[in-house]
Amino acid sequence: MYKPGCPYGTHRVLEPKGVLPQPAWKIDNTMEIYDNELLIDVDTLNIDAASFTQIKKQAQGDAEAFAAIMRDIVSQRGKHHNPVTGSGGMLMGTVQEIGPKFAGKTPVKVGDRIATLVSLSLTPLQIHRIKAIDMEKDQASVEAQAILFSSGIYAVLPEDMSPTLALAILDVAGAPAQTAHLVRPGQTVLIIGGGGKSGLLCAYEAKKRAGITGKIIGLGSGKASCARMERLGVFDHILQVDATDPLKVLAAIQEATQGNLADVTINCVNIPGTEMSSILATKENGLVYFFSMATSFTAAALGAEGIGKDVTMLIGNGYCKDHAVVSLQTVRECPVLMEIFQELFA
Amino acid sequence: MYKPGCPYGTHRVLEPKGVLPQPAWKIDNTMEIYDNELLIDVDTLNIDAASFTQIKKQAQGDAEAFAAIMRDIVSQRGKHHNPVTGSGGMLMGTVQEIGPKFAGKTPVKVGDRIATLVSLSLTPLQIHRIKAIDMEKDQASVEAQAILFSSGIYAVLPEDMSPTLALAILDVAGAPAQTAHLVRPGQTVLIIGGGGKSGLLCAYEAKKRAGITGKIIGLGSGKASCARMERLGVFDHILQVDATDPLKVLAAIQEATQGNLADVTINCVNIPGTEMSSILATKENGLVYFFSMATSFTAAALGAEGIGKDVTMLIGNGYCKDHAVVSLQTVRECPVLMEIFQELFA
Repeated sequence: MYKPGCPYGTHRVLEPKGVLPQPAWKIDNTMEIYDNELLIDVDTLNIDAASFTQIKKQAQGDAEAFAAIMRDIVSQRGKHHNPVTGSGGMLMGTVQEIGPKFAGKTPVKVGDRIATLVSLSLTPLQIHRIKAIDMEKDQASVEAQAILFSSGIYAVLPEDMSPTLALAILDVAGAPAQTAHLVRPGQTVLIIGGGGKSGLLCAYEAKKRAGITGKIIGLGSGKASCARMERLGVFDHILQVDATDPLKVLAAIQEATQGNLADVTINCVNIPGTEMSSILATKENGLVYFFSMATSFTAAALGAEGIGKDVTMLIGNGYCKDHAVVSLQTVRECPVLMEIFQELFA
Repeated sequence: MYKPGCPYGTHRVLEPKGVLPQPAWKIDNTMEIYDNELLIDVDTLNIDAASFTQIKKQAQGDAEAFAAIMRDIVSQRGKHHNPVTGSGGMLMGTVQEIGPKFAGKTPVKVGDRIATLVSLSLTPLQIHRIKAIDMEKDQASVEAQAILFSSGIYAVLPEDMSPTLALAILDVAGAPAQTAHLVRPGQTVLIIGGGGKSGLLCAYEAKKRAGITGKIIGLGSGKASCARMERLGVFDHILQVDATDPLKVLAAIQEATQGNLADVTINCVNIPGTEMSSILATKENGLVYFFSMATSFTAAALGAEGIGKDVTMLIGNGYCKDHAVVSLQTVRECPVLMEIFQELFA
């Protein structure tokens, strides 16, 4: 007999009442699942970089003290939600039990090794034992249990690559999956930050969709980034230009497209002040996809208005249906991409 | 003989070189036009509220001192770009001369009375005389001249309504014009902040597009806002709910739609913290249009990911082709909307 739960996990919120689990101060971490929950036997906690750094500092680099702080956070809040940084992280583990009404986005069964793609800051967690803290990888090896809500996203970890590599790909999974939806045959696609992790994935996916008549243009500020783009081999043009300089970006795109500009611009560069470059580089009635978390909403909205440009501007949703499957497959089917990712992240 | 200009007005940037006119400290305000510029005989400056308040305070409420500060700003920068607030405003005037290569978005001729819809913070301006400062309306009556770049947007002021009313409508013109593009017959459309200026315009336009089989739902927190929605007469449901409470919003929308949620959600409420409500209220694969300038990019991006919701999220572009014509016509064709707008803004 299972108790009925809310898909967003509000049934576990203890205080304050009436909010979602993420903003809640404390959630119920009883490890008896509701009808729409999934129970995970957790072996690894990947703590968010900001959170890890803060705890390490507070613990003065001592692993015992670090573990004590972790236990303290979870006993206070029912989740590994760092009260100082406000951030969480993610976890890896094995599926232990699935509620009869759990409606996951992709098939999963008891015994599957999964990674959760929602934040630890909203995930009910109980730590039984902390076995080791890896100060280099921001990871803790644990014996623990966690709950995934019906709305929570996860990925079954593939057997043909290391968990670290898979996680590095899954971290930006939304970007290539969205690119697959946005790019049409024959289009000119500009990828700002094309040599970064999400940029390379988007470029490969964009080339596949734009096809032989399409044109993929990559923009990067550094030599290393441009060299990675060169190596991937799907770019028709590689432009080494500072993305925060709108006029230089515009001039470079105009030259590369004979003045036609891009049909679709995908912004993957995690630095502020690149909204105007993205807008200027895009055709009238074109589309700008802002995947960068450094994007300013007002800079984009007022920037387009200021130059009277009718472009559609999308906020990069970190989730997109089947994004885990699509992004892992992207790397699998391209040997060069696999090589680059293994060098950088494995 | 005209000199050739850049559509974005970079030919007028004096310092620092290589930036766009808005971020520039100083632009060239010589009133001899380039081949793609338009010269305006300015009679009214509508100073941005933040800028007006700052100048008024600095001038200690004295009109003479106020005028002196205005003249000082323009002589230093070549534009009425308040160095303290960073904001501008807009202007009204009569078209005096049109360069042979000026490619305006809508037809315009010498002698037309127009309002510029781009900020004064990027508009070359010369003030010959300040005739009066209206401390209530944040306006200055002037004898002045200004330049509009080829990319700059403007609207020919209609003869059938007061300039104040027209400006109030044009201020949010992007929202109803975008709504016309987004809403399809038979859809369920939720308008958050449906009783506000842009909300009412969007609602009327949404009803027109969704048609008899569509459903328009308005959400507002106050009684006055709900009363205005009632009066407009296009809403199928009016919900008095606090937009910053995602769970209450979700419950209300579920009830109004028998659990189906909205196909399109238009967020017009200028208060922070309403991203999650907008996302929760929208169907899987639905669309959220954030017109509110209080939208946080990261709250939207991470919020959708946190609950695994595949919704398309659009940044509200203040400009959309023909937005001035569309928005003015919206008010003209709906007598109740005209009445409400006249009471509130005329």
